[in-house]
Amino acid sequence: MKFVTFRRASGRPEAGVLLGDQAVGLAGAGFSNMLSVLASGAEGRAKIENFVHHRPADSTFPLSSIQLLAPVPRPPKLICVGLNYRDHAAEARQEIPKIPNIFAKFSNVVIGPGQPIVLPKNSRQPDYEAEFAFVIGTGGRHIPGYAWREHVFGYTAFNDVSARDFQRATSQWMIGKTFDTFAPMGPCLVSADEIADPHALDISLRIGGETLQHSNTRELIFKIPDLLAYLSSVVTLEPGDVVATGTPAGVGFARTPPRYLQPGDEVIVSIEGIGELRNPVVAES
Amino acid sequence: MKFVTFRRASGRPEAGVLLGDQAVGLAGAGFSNMLSVLASGAEGRAKIENFVHHRPADSTFPLSSIQLLAPVPRPPKLICVGLNYRDHAAEARQEIPKIPNIFAKFSNVVIGPGQPIVLPKNSRQPDYEAEFAFVIGTGGRHIPGYAWREHVFGYTAFNDVSARDFQRATSQWMIGKTFDTFAPMGPCLVSADEIADPHALDISLRIGGETLQHSNTRELIFKIPDLLAYLSSVVTLEPGDVVATGTPAGVGFARTPPRYLQPGDEVIVSIEGIGELRNPVVAES
Repeated sequence: MKFVTFRRASGRPEAGVLLGDQAVGLAGAGFSNMLSVLASGAEGRAKIENFVHHRPADSTFPLSSIQLLAPVPRPPKLICVGLNYRDHAAEARQEIPKIPNIFAKFSNVVIGPGQPIVLPKNSRQPDYEAEFAFVIGTGGRHIPGYAWREHVFGYTAFNDVSARDFQRATSQWMIGKTFDTFAPMGPCLVSADEIADPHALDISLRIGGETLQHSNTRELIFKIPDLLAYLSSVVTLEPGDVVATGTPAGVGFARTPPRYLQPGDEVIVSIEGIGELRNPVVAES
Repeated sequence: MKFVTFRRASGRPEAGVLLGDQAVGLAGAGFSNMLSVLASGAEGRAKIENFVHHRPADSTFPLSSIQLLAPVPRPPKLICVGLNYRDHAAEARQEIPKIPNIFAKFSNVVIGPGQPIVLPKNSRQPDYEAEFAFVIGTGGRHIPGYAWREHVFGYTAFNDVSARDFQRATSQWMIGKTFDTFAPMGPCLVSADEIADPHALDISLRIGGETLQHSNTRELIFKIPDLLAYLSSVVTLEPGDVVATGTPAGVGFARTPPRYLQPGDEVIVSIEGIGELRNPVVAES
């Protein structure tokens, strides 16, 4: 199933399931938001399937009548992996990591599909990074890599927007990664059962018809089991935690000449089996 | 006032105010937790003062009957500043920063006074860092430094526990900083009006009677107005965000010989006007 978070006119965010050109809202099944879906386990999943099968008319909304938000609008943790594709590590003139290089974004900078990426007044190097992300369903600590399928709820597309000047002004990248709006996510959260192999998905990013990044998740240096085992060897993972797995080559700063984000751009991250995450780019007012 | 989060036997966390050897619970004043206190502004503060003045007997609990938790058990953001005392930058053989060096911890690793710091099985270099922290009341973006008093609710003591081997295994420090239990905070949140000058407070850390760190917040390179302006030039700050301002010299890795945390230690962070944050140290089972 494809899960979404959406809003009806001026309403609160609700969890739902995509069904053709409609969304089935899950409030009637007892789920007030996506975190409650993610935490509900196999029992919740069965309840949702049953509810969607018998969906009442008053829980069904044409997509044209609702606004999609980020599928997990406020993840407990928004974990990012740096330099996790060989070709990107090379273009960034960094060594191929032997250990995952972990940083984070603050959760209040997440935006959904269609919402604008706001270019900060104080950065001259705003950049894009197409990323494949996985979302935790069942949390835990010291999760063995082989058990990853019991903990990963599903997958989404992510754009690790980065102000390169801020990212590089100090040794720690985070401040350049966590400007407001710098975490577009969506358009949906595809449940893990829908994707036979998450390590064989085409991923690309384009702006204005030009493809700027194009790779496949098989090129990930650290794959989902590695990341899950490593992260949970340190910190308890929780339902709704999002792990953005890193970006392939082709980012703006590494191009000749550099290609930074500009007002008027529309950035499109496409991942096979998930869909397109589109975000317009605007200047900070 | 000194605010605390506490728990009665097996109950939920509640917000309260210290009054001698008692805590006045604020549930009866309509505050379900510390975040609701922090977000309530001047109106909330007046309500709290009135409630505490007329405190009903059934809202008053001897400290011996309750467990203090971290004053902000789950901050929306747990922001840390690196290398913010000259003497610590020197002992770490790093340059004096010209720009604040920002990283984060995940919020689910916060623990309160008396709760154990658990030394991870997989780290051989667990270390301590005494820090002065400020807590946001009124949030905002692009806050000018001079307006800091309108946004800072109060102050607390913090221990930026750090697994040095993990911190240095990659370029990004965060993973070594965010093991479960690596964010002791407390014992209370002192409201800003109680501290005439937060940049003139003695801060120290001792273990087993030995003082290992001793400095004063006047030595901070970036002070509260600088940090508030810098951080809010990037990301919207929210009620309950905690900013740990960095540690002075004397940390374990820089000592000869190194002095890492050991099971059986009790780490005591003392800050003038705030009190003592004491945490026992145990091995991971």
